[in-house]
Amino acid sequence: MAFNKRVKIKHLLESGKVGEQIILMGWVRTKRSNKNVSFIALNDGSSINNYQIVADPAIISEDILKSITTGACIKVTGEVVASQGTGQSTEVQASGIAILGEADPEKFPLQPKKHSLEFLREIAHLRMRTNTFGAVFRVRHALAFAVHQYFNDKGFFYIHTPIITASDAEGAGETFKVTTLDIKNPPLTDKGTIDYKQDFFERETNLTVSGQLEGELAAMALSEIYTFGPTFRAENSNTTRHLAEFWMIEPEMAFYDAEDNQDLAEDFLQKVISYALSNCADDLEFLDKRAAEEDATKKAEQRSEMGLLQRLKFVTENRFERITYTQAIDILKNSTPNKKKKFNYLIDNWGVDLQSEHERYLVEKHFKKPVILTDYPKEIKSFYMRQNDDGKTVAAMDILFPGIGEIVGGSQREERLENLNQRMDELNIPKDEMWWYLETRKFGTAPHAGFGLGFERLVQFVTGMGNIRDVIAFPRTPGNAEF
Amino acid sequence: MAFNKRVKIKHLLESGKVGEQIILMGWVRTKRSNKNVSFIALNDGSSINNYQIVADPAIISEDILKSITTGACIKVTGEVVASQGTGQSTEVQASGIAILGEADPEKFPLQPKKHSLEFLREIAHLRMRTNTFGAVFRVRHALAFAVHQYFNDKGFFYIHTPIITASDAEGAGETFKVTTLDIKNPPLTDKGTIDYKQDFFERETNLTVSGQLEGELAAMALSEIYTFGPTFRAENSNTTRHLAEFWMIEPEMAFYDAEDNQDLAEDFLQKVISYALSNCADDLEFLDKRAAEEDATKKAEQRSEMGLLQRLKFVTENRFERITYTQAIDILKNSTPNKKKKFNYLIDNWGVDLQSEHERYLVEKHFKKPVILTDYPKEIKSFYMRQNDDGKTVAAMDILFPGIGEIVGGSQREERLENLNQRMDELNIPKDEMWWYLETRKFGTAPHAGFGLGFERLVQFVTGMGNIRDVIAFPRTPGNAEF
Repeated sequence: MAFNKRVKIKHLLESGKVGEQIILMGWVRTKRSNKNVSFIALNDGSSINNYQIVADPAIISEDILKSITTGACIKVTGEVVASQGTGQSTEVQASGIAILGEADPEKFPLQPKKHSLEFLREIAHLRMRTNTFGAVFRVRHALAFAVHQYFNDKGFFYIHTPIITASDAEGAGETFKVTTLDIKNPPLTDKGTIDYKQDFFERETNLTVSGQLEGELAAMALSEIYTFGPTFRAENSNTTRHLAEFWMIEPEMAFYDAEDNQDLAEDFLQKVISYALSNCADDLEFLDKRAAEEDATKKAEQRSEMGLLQRLKFVTENRFERITYTQAIDILKNSTPNKKKKFNYLIDNWGVDLQSEHERYLVEKHFKKPVILTDYPKEIKSFYMRQNDDGKTVAAMDILFPGIGEIVGGSQREERLENLNQRMDELNIPKDEMWWYLETRKFGTAPHAGFGLGFERLVQFVTGMGNIRDVIAFPRTPGNAEF
Repeated sequence: MAFNKRVKIKHLLESGKVGEQIILMGWVRTKRSNKNVSFIALNDGSSINNYQIVADPAIISEDILKSITTGACIKVTGEVVASQGTGQSTEVQASGIAILGEADPEKFPLQPKKHSLEFLREIAHLRMRTNTFGAVFRVRHALAFAVHQYFNDKGFFYIHTPIITASDAEGAGETFKVTTLDIKNPPLTDKGTIDYKQDFFERETNLTVSGQLEGELAAMALSEIYTFGPTFRAENSNTTRHLAEFWMIEPEMAFYDAEDNQDLAEDFLQKVISYALSNCADDLEFLDKRAAEEDATKKAEQRSEMGLLQRLKFVTENRFERITYTQAIDILKNSTPNKKKKFNYLIDNWGVDLQSEHERYLVEKHFKKPVILTDYPKEIKSFYMRQNDDGKTVAAMDILFPGIGEIVGGSQREERLENLNQRMDELNIPKDEMWWYLETRKFGTAPHAGFGLGFERLVQFVTGMGNIRDVIAFPRTPGNAEF
């Protein structure tokens, strides 16, 4: 049967030769007809660009031509010819067309007109057939591949850390429970509590919020590792920046200090974004126009100062600004919006956590470039971050991007057993559950560092999509688990 | 501080130059000392090979030398010199050694002696520091990278399908429930059932058993896609071949028929295994010896007919045998173990499902090569497999490997709406929950196919590890969710 002999439109656009006999398969985007000829725009998902099929009603039957409607899937046999029209250098003169699957124009929801992103979210099973979502998911793929290639080239090992976990050190209660117990009639202990001994794992388990702690274990053996897997938050946040299920990239490196960590994160971000720029030029050009059109509908003060492509190049071509939290507080305290009380949260004291409005001020107004903020107060950061000598701050870093805010969070890890023990005690973190984490500090501990990158935030930044639900195929949010 | 200036042992072994001044960091594997000199075998996880450090007690203090015990982490400054001993061409003459982390010899469990795999499983947070597990996880990384590279080179797009899902079409009840409800006091409806409207997703949800159905949706837009993500089975199987949490690779391709699917799967398996052979030569050589030693402890009839490396090359160098289920039943019916009633499940009738013993007979005894079994009875396969014209079989394929049994399962998918509807009705599959799956058959349907590969099975095959718990960092099995 050899269906596989079809040519992909991407390849045809790049290297199709006039005179070739070829087979194309794909979905009809549009058809324009007159008495003498039909022009079909065909897309097979390999490229944002359609390919033009010329169908002569003397060759292709009326029945077939009638079934060629938007959304239909067809197989085209024909010859590559020089195009008479503008917009393409070649086209295919069809010698035969077979209908693989019809799409009833009365029922197929993706007719060629503008659809709202909200509507397309409801038909996420079909939205990848649109220009916008085709582009988004091709770029998403390119970024994922660039991540693997970057780390592989550097000698990092990819580790799959567990999804189901019994440790909740970072979860802060916002985790999903995983169970095989009968929720209606759970088994109880003598004391009347749930008898988790009868659950699948013989203990209480939940979905991971981060692979970092297990990643550290691997780094203390293999030196440089990274994770790239799903993580979960049962947080009731209905925003454009939150998902209940999202993918995280978490490199962990033995023998890195805080500065090494910053160097790696900056280089990593620049390289993967550069990869997308080189490998997804057509898709990004489309998304750049799309973002500009969207921007034009906004009020002047909400418009981006740079276009999408401009923003991407800006990130890849400029060193990130590196300042401490303390320096940032000074800048913010003396900033116009703080003095004029324009911030929702005014900055007066050292020690407060920064809000999105402050991060965006630093990045978009003050420095006008990505910022690495370091050395936060220990009170607003996690127990595993390395304590600085000042007794007040930890060797944390957050990387802030224009339009996105925090895209990376990381730190040098506390490798000194005593310091770690003391901090865990202060924060009432159950040390018995974490015996394995503490043991890496007992046996051959080493300075090490790492960071976490929310993959969807990166895809948002690179594609310019405003809502995080539009950069993952089937988003999970409060009340939404369709598909 | 610039910790990052250290040289990796892998690079030093490949291209270290006599006379270079370098910094090394890693964990001490062993130390041999006499009055005049100490030899330290250092490993940093970048390679299975240790690097030899020569420490002169006239230069390195007694205190430091005393702390250099197995498992300790050290920083070595020194010069690359030609080695006097055998086993290495260069070594480092230490001018300074700093102890980064001690490892109390009384407490550190990984002393240099043989440890059982069972014991090492209990200290999974440390086992990656052994030769065997270092090798396994480097090979696992190489295979994962090879998967991404293979599909990227072919123009497939990586899709992240959902982990939390409300559809249970394939789950057959063996799924983990995901909830934020209070299990002790779940909210109830008027009718006394659990009120899932109050759960996080406002419905009953569970962990995915496969990304295939969602993968198909993406293939019907982007042509060729693959997934690589975690999947789950709440099956109470305490075997060497089952995990509750494991990673699956699931390519789905529009415009592929059954034969295209087989061609892709065979080529894919051969290419990723070849990649490991080229990129993990040292690790695989070690694992080959390890497997041979383990084999030698077995009874003659249980020993492998081929060594590990031999087996890998055999798979990459030979075409897979392709036979139908019907042909396989004939072979099995007339086989010696069937006639002599040696099979636990005797083969007498067409239609029975094949057991592991039958698959292994076909692969290891009859054909002595990987086998692609096709066209199974529809009764023993899933609803989504394409029905063959005979009315009895479906266009399924299983790929069977020596020692492992089924490593790939796939099929051409049923793209005809009527046939799919009819089969779902026969099997009582809730069609209203699957409206989105059915819509891809309504709107521009196309012949398509795909398969699933259990990644850990592949890692088992390539590393020769007998127990699947030894090829994933932190295995999840009944009663086990430690780390």
